[in-house]
Amino acid sequence: MPKKNLPPDAAKMGEFALIARHFTRTAAASAESLVLGVGDDGALIQPTPGHQLAISSDMLVEGRHFFPDADPGSLGHKALAVNLSDLAAMGARPLGFTLAIALPAVDDAWLAAFARGLFALADAHACPLVGGDTTRGPLTLSITVFGEVLPGQALRRSAAQSGDDLWLSGRTGEARLALAQRQGLPWATTASPADLTQARARMDQPTPRLALGQALAGLAHAAIDVSDGLAGDLGHILQASELGADIDWAALPLAPALAALPVEWQRECVLHGGDDYELLFTASPDDRDRVRAAGAASETVVQRIGRLHAAPGLVLIDHHGQRAPLAMRGHDHFAA
Amino acid sequence: MPKKNLPPDAAKMGEFALIARHFTRTAAASAESLVLGVGDDGALIQPTPGHQLAISSDMLVEGRHFFPDADPGSLGHKALAVNLSDLAAMGARPLGFTLAIALPAVDDAWLAAFARGLFALADAHACPLVGGDTTRGPLTLSITVFGEVLPGQALRRSAAQSGDDLWLSGRTGEARLALAQRQGLPWATTASPADLTQARARMDQPTPRLALGQALAGLAHAAIDVSDGLAGDLGHILQASELGADIDWAALPLAPALAALPVEWQRECVLHGGDDYELLFTASPDDRDRVRAAGAASETVVQRIGRLHAAPGLVLIDHHGQRAPLAMRGHDHFAA
Repeated sequence: MPKKNLPPDAAKMGEFALIARHFTRTAAASAESLVLGVGDDGALIQPTPGHQLAISSDMLVEGRHFFPDADPGSLGHKALAVNLSDLAAMGARPLGFTLAIALPAVDDAWLAAFARGLFALADAHACPLVGGDTTRGPLTLSITVFGEVLPGQALRRSAAQSGDDLWLSGRTGEARLALAQRQGLPWATTASPADLTQARARMDQPTPRLALGQALAGLAHAAIDVSDGLAGDLGHILQASELGADIDWAALPLAPALAALPVEWQRECVLHGGDDYELLFTASPDDRDRVRAAGAASETVVQRIGRLHAAPGLVLIDHHGQRAPLAMRGHDHFAA
Repeated sequence: MPKKNLPPDAAKMGEFALIARHFTRTAAASAESLVLGVGDDGALIQPTPGHQLAISSDMLVEGRHFFPDADPGSLGHKALAVNLSDLAAMGARPLGFTLAIALPAVDDAWLAAFARGLFALADAHACPLVGGDTTRGPLTLSITVFGEVLPGQALRRSAAQSGDDLWLSGRTGEARLALAQRQGLPWATTASPADLTQARARMDQPTPRLALGQALAGLAHAAIDVSDGLAGDLGHILQASELGADIDWAALPLAPALAALPVEWQRECVLHGGDDYELLFTASPDDRDRVRAAGAASETVVQRIGRLHAAPGLVLIDHHGQRAPLAMRGHDHFAA
């Protein structure tokens, strides 16, 4: 952590040293590419020769992106996961991340749990913390991740082609249900406790699809991670690629927790719910076997859920083959 | 700016689109190394082959790092300057930066002025904004900068050698005086209005010493930027390099604004005042001419102010040659 936020008096020095302790680690979890980590004016990383650098930043603010009573371990996981998910959507391999954190007060147990959640995910992807900043302020987490990808292989929103298949990893909707249940909305309480627990885990500890993203680099055309809702995020690909798309409702995987809901709520969750962090991507129909092989190699379920076409607009095709326009809107969890 | 903070309803969409407008620019200011800028899941940068990547992050929180009524143009400059200063202290050339910003409300004039200050400095150093995040929250600015440096040439805190000269760029102390004047402290009001204006500019719009830092890469041994006070920051070099140092008070440049102060306040400002963002570095006595040439080439005044030695501790030598221990403490502007 930079020196500039080490206050001069001993009491506070102790507090900030305490914070630093939770984020300072031995080289155990360091990746080969890390030349110099936390503790200087900056970090030094040696990217693989010939690769491009992929960079993404996300800021999480208490009360807007997470509840004030959020479990600190889950929060540590999620703060990094939403950033790694952006690298996955670029097809990049993680190299490291920085964490800037504002804290209203020092709570040793909270920090220890936060760091455990954060580093468990970082270690799983060999993505070391290389630097950052700690300061006093309203609880705010700002992470920037760096990855690398071969030139021309990054998955861009603008690269979809007319005639492409539309694919989805995993399934969407459970995070939206878990949020609704957390908010006490009556329709969300019909699922079984076991299904709700699973849905809650999807909201609190999302899985960034890094292995799949890397397997798709140079194979898929466009990709995005579903953070804001399937229809809304697909809209970003369609806008950037100047295309339209059909989605087959019957092809979309439905989580057990959503099975008993009226179809309107199922659609709200699956098509417009945020916080799923699955990959939504397009690829040539000629490459279906290769896409399935990429899914198998990365142990990630992939499902063909529609197709792209030159005609603008998004269309949902229901179980009966009926076509209806679908709004390209997402969901903001903390909007008023 | 990432999609996930675009709220769904039209009114807020408008607000966030307004924010995005201030930070979205055409390619005019883009560096050659920028492959893909703002607008996808992440940015893509092509570093120069064979170089290492230098990374640094700083977070600025309202009320702690800047006053609530801070001029937005100066704030935009300073938020980037303190980060670029870290790259300067590594000897790195800037490649780009990300900005994550939490805003309590949207103020178009404020944002326009902030962006002007930010981009004026970014353009001066060919350091493009490559991505980031905008969200609602207490005013918080989190910037991460990336630069590049040849392997083995980065300036590290731990690389000082016994017998090295100690050098300082520019002069320190004015930012501390300006803060004291802003706080209404009686001792700080004795300077002339013109001198105080200059001191205020040092606090509000610091100059990152990037050209000097790059000229010193591979030449100087250790370097740090003076953000926390000369004595405190030198302490970081001494600790990392396991050395001690003497500072010659008579060799330290004194700003006109400090000339009339009692020597105790001069020392407080020059040795312990923060926010100067000058470079403090060490180099072999054999390289004095090369260091002076690096200063001349980068149009930056450099001054030899002391020397490093194996005996631990920091000593101040006064005008009369008297030696006295000097505390390795800095100053935190917003500590209670």
